[in-house]
Amino acid sequence: MTVQKTNPKTNPKTNSGNFFEDFRIGQKLVHATPRTVTAGDAALYTSLFGPRFPVQSSAEFARSLGLPEAPMDDLLTFHIIFGKTVADISLNAVANLGYAECRFLRPVYAGDTLAATSDVIGLKENSNGKTGIVYVRSTGTNQRGETVASWVRWVMVRKGDEAAPVPEAVVPQLADVVSVSDLALPEANFSDYDFALAGSPHRWGDYEPGEQIDHIDGMTIEEAEHMMATRAFQNTAKVHFNQFTEGKGRFGRRLIYGGHVISLARALSFNGLGNAAFVAAINAGAHVAPCFAGDTVYAWSRIVEKAELPGRDDCGALRVNMIATKDYPCADFPLKDEAGKNHAAVILNLDYWVIMPK
Amino acid sequence: MTVQKTNPKTNPKTNSGNFFEDFRIGQKLVHATPRTVTAGDAALYTSLFGPRFPVQSSAEFARSLGLPEAPMDDLLTFHIIFGKTVADISLNAVANLGYAECRFLRPVYAGDTLAATSDVIGLKENSNGKTGIVYVRSTGTNQRGETVASWVRWVMVRKGDEAAPVPEAVVPQLADVVSVSDLALPEANFSDYDFALAGSPHRWGDYEPGEQIDHIDGMTIEEAEHMMATRAFQNTAKVHFNQFTEGKGRFGRRLIYGGHVISLARALSFNGLGNAAFVAAINAGAHVAPCFAGDTVYAWSRIVEKAELPGRDDCGALRVNMIATKDYPCADFPLKDEAGKNHAAVILNLDYWVIMPK
Amino acid sequence: MTVQKTNPKTNPKTNSGNFFEDFRIGQKLVHATPRTVTAGDAALYTSLFGPRFPVQSSAEFARSLGLPEAPMDDLLTFHIIFGKTVADISLNAVANLGYAECRFLRPVYAGDTLAATSDVIGLKENSNGKTGIVYVRSTGTNQRGETVASWVRWVMVRKGDEAAPVPEAVVPQLADVVSVSDLALPEANFSDYDFALAGSPHRWGDYEPGEQIDHIDGMTIEEAEHMMATRAFQNTAKVHFNQFTEGKGRFGRRLIYGGHVISLARALSFNGLGNAAFVAAINAGAHVAPCFAGDTVYAWSRIVEKAELPGRDDCGALRVNMIATKDYPCADFPLKDEAGKNHAAVILNLDYWVIMPK
Repeated sequence: MTVQKTNPKTNPKTNSGNFFEDFRIGQKLVHATPRTVTAGDAALYTSLFGPRFPVQSSAEFARSLGLPEAPMDDLLTFHIIFGKTVADISLNAVANLGYAECRFLRPVYAGDTLAATSDVIGLKENSNGKTGIVYVRSTGTNQRGETVASWVRWVMVRKGDEAAPVPEAVVPQLADVVSVSDLALPEANFSDYDFALAGSPHRWGDYEPGEQIDHIDGMTIEEAEHMMATRAFQNTAKVHFNQFTEGKGRFGRRLIYGGHVISLARALSFNGLGNAAFVAAINAGAHVAPCFAGDTVYAWSRIVEKAELPGRDDCGALRVNMIATKDYPCADFPLKDEAGKNHAAVILNLDYWVIMPK
Repeated sequence: MTVQKTNPKTNPKTNSGNFFEDFRIGQKLVHATPRTVTAGDAALYTSLFGPRFPVQSSAEFARSLGLPEAPMDDLLTFHIIFGKTVADISLNAVANLGYAECRFLRPVYAGDTLAATSDVIGLKENSNGKTGIVYVRSTGTNQRGETVASWVRWVMVRKGDEAAPVPEAVVPQLADVVSVSDLALPEANFSDYDFALAGSPHRWGDYEPGEQIDHIDGMTIEEAEHMMATRAFQNTAKVHFNQFTEGKGRFGRRLIYGGHVISLARALSFNGLGNAAFVAAINAGAHVAPCFAGDTVYAWSRIVEKAELPGRDDCGALRVNMIATKDYPCADFPLKDEAGKNHAAVILNLDYWVIMPK
Repeated sequence: MTVQKTNPKTNPKTNSGNFFEDFRIGQKLVHATPRTVTAGDAALYTSLFGPRFPVQSSAEFARSLGLPEAPMDDLLTFHIIFGKTVADISLNAVANLGYAECRFLRPVYAGDTLAATSDVIGLKENSNGKTGIVYVRSTGTNQRGETVASWVRWVMVRKGDEAAPVPEAVVPQLADVVSVSDLALPEANFSDYDFALAGSPHRWGDYEPGEQIDHIDGMTIEEAEHMMATRAFQNTAKVHFNQFTEGKGRFGRRLIYGGHVISLARALSFNGLGNAAFVAAINAGAHVAPCFAGDTVYAWSRIVEKAELPGRDDCGALRVNMIATKDYPCADFPLKDEAGKNHAAVILNLDYWVIMPK
């Protein structure tokens, strides 16, 4: 941003992103650039995060559940769609505040092409007059026009001109939790799910609300890793890539894309939630604190609730609260400190639904 | 090279590369190793450089232009062919001096296998008697024997034996600019090009010679990134990979392959040249200064000229002069300093033709 | 492991790995997770290690030998199968002691799905009562149930409870060398092998027992690289990934997976053994010293013996002893020091069979 302020000559053909006053309720943004997802992306995702969930790892395992081949990791789908929205929604964002009503509706396979649009559903200027909150519902579709995932997120965006008039505040009503009836039923049939090959004998019925799981393992993040991931997602938020500018900025270094932490924590959660085969929905998510290269990410989960899926006796849904920390093993399940604030080590608080075989 | 000097026992089965006196005018070098390019390479290229040009990003977008699927990035093709030439041409190079007459003739798709040959077209010993300049025309072909790209480059190569006799100097006449009539007409038909999905409304007709564009964004390079890229290109120049030797060498550290900077700058140029769909030719290129891990690369472009393509009303050619810098945002379009020398921050000066929809 | 000691609440659904007393002679372990290998994995492997062997690099070259397409690098196959065994065999290992009787039996192609099992064939408690040696024969199979590779390895594993009773010692008899009659004959026919495209004119007949080859080049390893590789192999040994824990541990930093060094050394060995088209067997291997990020790996080889392959006049086998070092060029072929111990720079000592065209 500094660049633009000091560069009145910047060519107007460059994208400086939308500022708060540029958004309008009801506006629909068509995001660039459509992206064909391939086996190359899946391999890269595995190498960057280390997931071991068998349906996404093995075409044969996927076929044993009736799928045509191994689907992409749900979070890879999420990141690619999310990445497209950045240039239009959050290039001038101060903070990514939250997610809600995120649903994964269809599997994505190698060869599918993802495109994204966003509808502006809420706008509220902050009292400082310098920023405002933008609420968008983003939708990712495949090459057949089918929605593969959809969610609401809200971000705090700077005003380009603090004197610019802004519309009346509209704050959307958002569900605290995606209701079970809104979860897409998995296309996979888990009747023949091979628990030995999957690496964990624990089924949906074995988990109980309130149960806490320390995922034990920790993973240190390198600059090259988070930049490679974020570029693969074609996410162009400059805070992730530019040491020269960010070295002089708020944190003195590059900030890791929050989605990188989600994917790492999800991969770590295999150790304890090995049969959480699909992410069905994200109810809420907060990037509680920033994460930087050199930090070691740990995670733990609490089972929030269990739900039967209508008409399905092969699988059920588990609502999970996953907490990620940095440089702090999760043996004591860190969440809040004594003052009731977020524990100093916590960087992610994610509330989501997974599908697990019964 | 240090290694060889101290190792008279080195087995002659190892490749020590050609020295200046080993080249002959008219010599044709068949380079190892043929390489099948895959969706994996394309994914890796995206993760390392972050391009967002839609034709290469989306198979659906490519099909909307009549192509069978998304082609490889032209520069990925360039780097893979270039990489093959290194073991025979530039293993003993002191400097990569220039490029000319580079043309991209056919798209490369996943599954195509690239092979490379070079013809020695010029030789000129330097007056110090220690080095000489080798000019080669390198040609990359696909599995059908069709040329996909071709260029001339010249490198300063050390003599293995300073007393060795060398042939009479021959310096080829090279075109300053690839003429428009020599540009391969794109196989893509841009009539239905979707500017909204592409992310930029600016067409060929919107650019004017003399126009300057600061591409704004900067990207910091990590050691792991440039080494992964350069290995993917099977480029074996040891200056890029060996901290132990290079730490004691000219720069005290590993040097980044110049092509890495070209690809980064090209990806950054999406912000301002988003519809520069293909690289048609490289007229000239100079790696003005070295680049190292930790440097943040920026870029700006000047439109040099515009050209109609014969028989095509869907697209035209733009000749672009792209400058890359390190640790220096390009708001003031750095090029020369007050003494007329290269600006201290400039690392790349590339003159090339792109194809853009009308 | 520290984590578990300080966390009595760790959920039993997490995998804490098997301890020495958990193993039984005759036990068969079915390892998670099956993994479909793709062109993405091959591309990543090339970018991480830089191999240039033509059969694996080019589908056209592979077809010229009668193969359907370019097979995966044998060591990629090895690492993926090895990775599966870690969670069950070596999560509580103190050291990976050795390999024997490793044979590569069938090529693996993009789309193949690998699964792994291990049979416990030896157990011997150490005299300190704290650890024991576990011998397993691990087998990797493809989706047709065909064995693609198989080997014995032995690891020193901690006891979870030092007082736990252990079975009587059984130490398997292992072959010092895989006999030539046990090598799988290559499916490739080398009659039309193109030595020019392969980059090296040296055939099986050109090598002699006792011949030593310094592979000259060195390659520095970055943290991001070895972690990306090891995650791609779904190898979950925590010593490779967690700077927070390992920074306080034995080495004060993350340890590089020994297989990473094998792959680097094999890629470096192209310079001198360029036509060593396939790895047929590993007779023995020792990770003599640890390797860390920042180390520069070099390698040299000694031809141990030559063997005709039954019924084949197109290719033969070479037994190679490959030594890798760190931060030490191999011009003087380092192996032992004056006291007869391993040379301080040596990190890998690998004895293996390769197939080379005649």
